[in-house]
Amino acid sequence: MRDGGPNSRAQLGDQVDLSRSKLAVEVDRLLETGLVVADGLAASRGGRRSHNIRLAPALRFLGVDIGATSIDVAVTNAELEVLGHVNHPMDVREGPVAVFEQVLAMAAKLRASGLADGYDGAGIGVPGPVRFPEGVPVAPPIMPGWDGFPVREALSQDLGCPVMVDNDVNLMAMGEQHAGVARSVGDFLCVKIGTGIGCGIVVGGEVYRGTTGSAGDIGHIRVEPDGRACVCGNRGCLEAHFSGAALARDAEDAARTGRSAELAARLEAAGRLTAADVAVAAAAGDPTALHLIREGGNRVGQVIAGLVSFFNPALVVIGGGVTGLGHTLLASVRTQVYRQSLPLATGNLPIVLGELGPTAGVTGAARLISDHLFSPA
Amino acid sequence: MRDGGPNSRAQLGDQVDLSRSKLAVEVDRLLETGLVVADGLAASRGGRRSHNIRLAPALRFLGVDIGATSIDVAVTNAELEVLGHVNHPMDVREGPVAVFEQVLAMAAKLRASGLADGYDGAGIGVPGPVRFPEGVPVAPPIMPGWDGFPVREALSQDLGCPVMVDNDVNLMAMGEQHAGVARSVGDFLCVKIGTGIGCGIVVGGEVYRGTTGSAGDIGHIRVEPDGRACVCGNRGCLEAHFSGAALARDAEDAARTGRSAELAARLEAAGRLTAADVAVAAAAGDPTALHLIREGGNRVGQVIAGLVSFFNPALVVIGGGVTGLGHTLLASVRTQVYRQSLPLATGNLPIVLGELGPTAGVTGAARLISDHLFSPA
Repeated sequence: MRDGGPNSRAQLGDQVDLSRSKLAVEVDRLLETGLVVADGLAASRGGRRSHNIRLAPALRFLGVDIGATSIDVAVTNAELEVLGHVNHPMDVREGPVAVFEQVLAMAAKLRASGLADGYDGAGIGVPGPVRFPEGVPVAPPIMPGWDGFPVREALSQDLGCPVMVDNDVNLMAMGEQHAGVARSVGDFLCVKIGTGIGCGIVVGGEVYRGTTGSAGDIGHIRVEPDGRACVCGNRGCLEAHFSGAALARDAEDAARTGRSAELAARLEAAGRLTAADVAVAAAAGDPTALHLIREGGNRVGQVIAGLVSFFNPALVVIGGGVTGLGHTLLASVRTQVYRQSLPLATGNLPIVLGELGPTAGVTGAARLISDHLFSPA
Repeated sequence: MRDGGPNSRAQLGDQVDLSRSKLAVEVDRLLETGLVVADGLAASRGGRRSHNIRLAPALRFLGVDIGATSIDVAVTNAELEVLGHVNHPMDVREGPVAVFEQVLAMAAKLRASGLADGYDGAGIGVPGPVRFPEGVPVAPPIMPGWDGFPVREALSQDLGCPVMVDNDVNLMAMGEQHAGVARSVGDFLCVKIGTGIGCGIVVGGEVYRGTTGSAGDIGHIRVEPDGRACVCGNRGCLEAHFSGAALARDAEDAARTGRSAELAARLEAAGRLTAADVAVAAAAGDPTALHLIREGGNRVGQVIAGLVSFFNPALVVIGGGVTGLGHTLLASVRTQVYRQSLPLATGNLPIVLGELGPTAGVTGAARLISDHLFSPA
């Protein structure tokens, strides 16, 4: 009902393969929980007409996507449609206490706007690895102060509802799977290029999180022997050579050394540059900006080529802040993958931009908690 | 019963969570199929003593592991214990007709030795990607003549029993999982370094084959921009820089250019060198041989480091022909992985040699067909 909307009892019976009488018992139990309600008359299939059954229209989920530099909070209905969505800039390095104060304020704001009386569950994404069963971030390289913070426990107390916590990239993958470009795809990769770089891995329709919750941590795959120093302490990591942060740094460097009048003008106006500035400069035809994007696309494409050989996915989705770099970036990634991976793995492989943009993470967060709440156990 | 041996009805009931009466019906159905038999009196748990139930002792599976340069064929009982095992050198490039003539001769030889009256099923591994549902090799780079050959159909006709076909590396992974070093591990990688290089991927206890059956094809991941030419048509592939074939070529090169008296002597004696010669020379302390192994270990370690970051496995198994290179190789691989991957992914990560050697593939093959025959559908 979450994914298909209102259903007649007859339709439900077809889907779950239960006899009429057993189904009636189950539906009555669901109605008692208040999770579903009767709603309108179903189309006749002969015999007595019955009411449609649907998820309770008052159900509300909170989807929270904590990025490195901003927070997205959205409220959805039971079908995971986003009813309201707010964004606030915030540095994740300010630590969990400050960040969750902000999250709670944003959740209260959405409630105050009349979109929700309260929340029946919340999903939270954080930009680092998570010990999934406990909902606790572990050793997140860009998140000092978060290691071991009991996110799940603390927030479920503050919000008064069940909470699930996951890595932000996994939630982006779930969002694109639920309502975006990866609908009905079983095995795919979702590469998020924001301040850092990560990869959501979906196997048989389920997010694969790895043994310690760090699966998909591709930002620290080495792309250059003796390359640039990385925050992780190694040299030559993908993230050190291409990510939102690396791109901003390269752009400022190009501006200061006179390689791009366009970027220099923007730097002077704003005092700093971001990936978005590079996107604008590239759109204006600035050759240095275009070069930076292509170079970055080659780097990340080289890593994705290896992952495609290894994982043989049905789809690769590129998302995150740098998707503003758009088709220039995508073209470089595609070139590398189609050149380096074997034809058997790339023959029918689409490499596409995500469809949902900033809604992907919050939708995935709502899906995470609804999967949990709607599961039989 | 396959994995745990003979069981009493009471033990079975505990395991499958069925009531006494329902279990009795199921056991009777199994007895009727002839797949299981009553066997000896079970230990008393009070009340009337019952017979143990076990898989029929006459059941025989054929495990076939076709490598690039040799064929292994083994016969197992229902518990997948290897009762007999034969090996025959053969170049897979001779094509499927010649190879399967040889396989059938080896299967007949095992039968003639009294180990089997016939075969109840056979599992076959081939050194290339397989369209798994149909049991047909696809576009195998080192296997001209095999593309699209109906292995499953042809062999099940010739052997008169059900046949399942898979990639050889997947079967090695299943073998190590069933009876080797990966017992009870859910998520692991099994890297086979033979003539080529491939990787078996196990997710939640199940082999992951990818969208077109080419998952784990890591031999063509690029390790060197503008590196050596590879048979696949690209440059710088892992396999072109390190594999059984690359190592033999490098060793011959070292012998001819006077860099190793040890290797030169072996080349003169045999007319050619193999990875085994390098292993012997290294064991004798030959510095060039040791250097070649370390260099190779660094290359494959670099790729495995990336896969560990991506996949976050609980275990990495190294197997295949070059395991004769042993701990020198392993040390280089470990060094690269522990240096390049993040601590969260490597903290509790064992990187070990396979335990089963040439038995891994044939055991995995027997497991493949037994999984198929013993599954409820």
